Amino acid sequence: MRMTDLIEQKKRGEALSEEAIAFWIHGVTNGTVPDYQSAALLMAICFQGMEPRETAVLTDAMMHSGDVADLSGIDGFTVDKHSTGGVGDKTTLVVAPLAAACGLKVAKMSGRGLGHTGGTIDKLEAIDGFQTALPKERFEAVVRDTGLCVIAQSGNIAPADKELYALRDVTGTVNELSLIASSVMSKKLAGGAKALVLDVKSGSGAFMKTKEEAVALAKAMVDIGIRHGRQVQAFITDMDRPLGFAVGNAVEVLEAIETLKGHGPADLTELSLCIVTAMLTMAGRGDEAACRRTAEEALQSGAALEKLRAMITAQGGDARVIDEPHHLPLAPCTRTVRATVDGYIVKTDTEAIGRTCTLLGAGRAKKDDPLDMGAGLLLHRKTGDAVNAGDVLCTLYASDEALLDAAETAFLKAVTVGDAPPAPIPLIMDVVNL
Amino acid sequence: MRMTDLIEQKKRGEALSEEAIAFWIHGVTNGTVPDYQSAALLMAICFQGMEPRETAVLTDAMMHSGDVADLSGIDGFTVDKHSTGGVGDKTTLVVAPLAAACGLKVAKMSGRGLGHTGGTIDKLEAIDGFQTALPKERFEAVVRDTGLCVIAQSGNIAPADKELYALRDVTGTVNELSLIASSVMSKKLAGGAKALVLDVKSGSGAFMKTKEEAVALAKAMVDIGIRHGRQVQAFITDMDRPLGFAVGNAVEVLEAIETLKGHGPADLTELSLCIVTAMLTMAGRGDEAACRRTAEEALQSGAALEKLRAMITAQGGDARVIDEPHHLPLAPCTRTVRATVDGYIVKTDTEAIGRTCTLLGAGRAKKDDPLDMGAGLLLHRKTGDAVNAGDVLCTLYASDEALLDAAETAFLKAVTVGDAPPAPIPLIMDVVNL
Repeated sequence: MRMTDLIEQKKRGEALSEEAIAFWIHGVTNGTVPDYQSAALLMAICFQGMEPRETAVLTDAMMHSGDVADLSGIDGFTVDKHSTGGVGDKTTLVVAPLAAACGLKVAKMSGRGLGHTGGTIDKLEAIDGFQTALPKERFEAVVRDTGLCVIAQSGNIAPADKELYALRDVTGTVNELSLIASSVMSKKLAGGAKALVLDVKSGSGAFMKTKEEAVALAKAMVDIGIRHGRQVQAFITDMDRPLGFAVGNAVEVLEAIETLKGHGPADLTELSLCIVTAMLTMAGRGDEAACRRTAEEALQSGAALEKLRAMITAQGGDARVIDEPHHLPLAPCTRTVRATVDGYIVKTDTEAIGRTCTLLGAGRAKKDDPLDMGAGLLLHRKTGDAVNAGDVLCTLYASDEALLDAAETAFLKAVTVGDAPPAPIPLIMDVVNL
Repeated sequence: MRMTDLIEQKKRGEALSEEAIAFWIHGVTNGTVPDYQSAALLMAICFQGMEPRETAVLTDAMMHSGDVADLSGIDGFTVDKHSTGGVGDKTTLVVAPLAAACGLKVAKMSGRGLGHTGGTIDKLEAIDGFQTALPKERFEAVVRDTGLCVIAQSGNIAPADKELYALRDVTGTVNELSLIASSVMSKKLAGGAKALVLDVKSGSGAFMKTKEEAVALAKAMVDIGIRHGRQVQAFITDMDRPLGFAVGNAVEVLEAIETLKGHGPADLTELSLCIVTAMLTMAGRGDEAACRRTAEEALQSGAALEKLRAMITAQGGDARVIDEPHHLPLAPCTRTVRATVDGYIVKTDTEAIGRTCTLLGAGRAKKDDPLDMGAGLLLHRKTGDAVNAGDVLCTLYASDEALLDAAETAFLKAVTVGDAPPAPIPLIMDVVNL
């Protein structure tokens, strides 16, 4: 088999055989296929796409290029979730303990933030002592004992995807549906859970700017999961405004704790309940209404909060953060940003809010940039809210006074105040469930 | 400027600016643009194409990536020709002396054969002692003194094209019109001649299988030349059968000599006269009819043959080959291939004839394969000819008896005998002259 023939085939718009895709991904993994041939093939895929069958085969090949978790030693129904990335998206910090409190097993590998989006692993590391790199045995033991464990994706999960992702990043081939779907799903399938809930964000703070794109991506990912014998459901959710009010690292952990105490933001609470309800439904725990009640009870009873405490303790973190927020770092320099006119917030450039956080030190412009765990921002008003001139729109947190001016300017640019309230956008825009 | 942005731009179908193309080709030349980014861009170009302006800019950038010949020291009108490659195409061996005999200056850099096509430089090297690598000064001196010199393209002519051509070859991106046109023209423009005749082959033995493709390529190349202030004319010529009867190296030199003696094959003679007529017209030597007469006289008088003799001598070759053909090598093992049925040759897979020659040792499957100068074949019948069972179709020449069986089988597969004569195809199918 020759790579050139594969490239020519895809260039002509033909589907690649299972053998051809295996040949390619094997070569990517062991370095026998040079980057320039992968780059040419990736670009041809951007133009010609891949059929669902091809996409599933590619996913499978990437998934098996490295370690595949074996969760068979864990009693109970294993679940996982994945968000395509957004601003203020601390859902995992609420969903994982809530699902565990309902008796599900959450063995989750998460990522770090990049660009305007945050990452669960970064947020967890805002908790003093919290270990996100655990050996396999310890990871499985924590899941068995506490019902949940969240660690950073290890180096040998889907290494072929890692190679190709890095190559896509520098060859203008990131933004193709089947490549995005197979990249995400190769890692999720390697994670080993029986059921998976996908949270596909749509809007100004998401990678998918329109609902149509988000639905297409969700369908592609659900299709891959089904073809691999997993239960998968996707929610298309609003990312035209940040989720909740807190954006950063420590501030988001605080907001997640508040949510598990029952007084978090309505959107974050609702989304978390929906995701856990879907997980319980897939686990066969009754009809949707019953599962919803189970999730609500686990939240209201404080059982979910206790699961978070157990996980933090098991992963070496300082669990005092749950009752004593001052154990979380909060950057010392603050600035309150106020509205200059009366009206309604009609639009938020949510990606710009994410970038404002990066300016404050809470995000990464490039991989390996250090993070300021205490930096971030707290919104006081969001899209749809009425504001009067002088009202506080948000509070900025930074470790260096000098960072506040640029962040304030960026924040004000991101928020548009108009005369009339905008049409409301539902939090959950669609459900994809093949 | 970032390569990723250029790639994205072309992927969206936008034209690249002059600065962007210069940035790319500069990076290709000095190695700062990695192959995988060039590969992605080349594939995007395969899908989106390039505008004539972009193609001309790319050509210019590649041309100036290395040495550009300065023929200003040569008195007279400098001409060049280029063939897109075919089987039995020894036209340069006739055209160069014929043009020189008409007073034109032929300072020509030629290539070697690859795949099913032969190369002028290989053919010339069948002449004992013939030097195809001359220092610049000696090259110019030979042109000045004899009116013609044909050497191998030096290493530093359009090095960016050399890099990109090698990359295209292994990334499935060879077959795009603007890339082919700019590749050819970057080298031809660097050759420095004032006027250029392009011989764009069309048919089963050519890279362009249809007349439409050949015309499109010819237009693209002529357009580039015109934009660079050169005079350019293209002929679209038949390559649905080999040119002349001889295919190989020494056998083709012999046929060229016969043609210069006035008794060569009709097609080779006619094509050579047409090309030289076009050159003379561009040199302002009168109307087409007058130029044709000039060319015919130079052939009939033997002046063209004497120019070949002068060139061989000046380039260190054994000029006795002109009068004593036995000084050219001819492989000792022969096989006559005969027709098995009565009828007409209705079709020739000319590319397969080229590959038959490679089987005999006269061609290269890959770069740097050694050549057997004496191997090749001599056709006795061509497409359109009537044959009776038992008639000799061709004679095969090889240095090893063992090579003949496979070559005979391949030859017979390439030739189709049918009941009725095929519709005639004109030798010169079209002329492109913007």
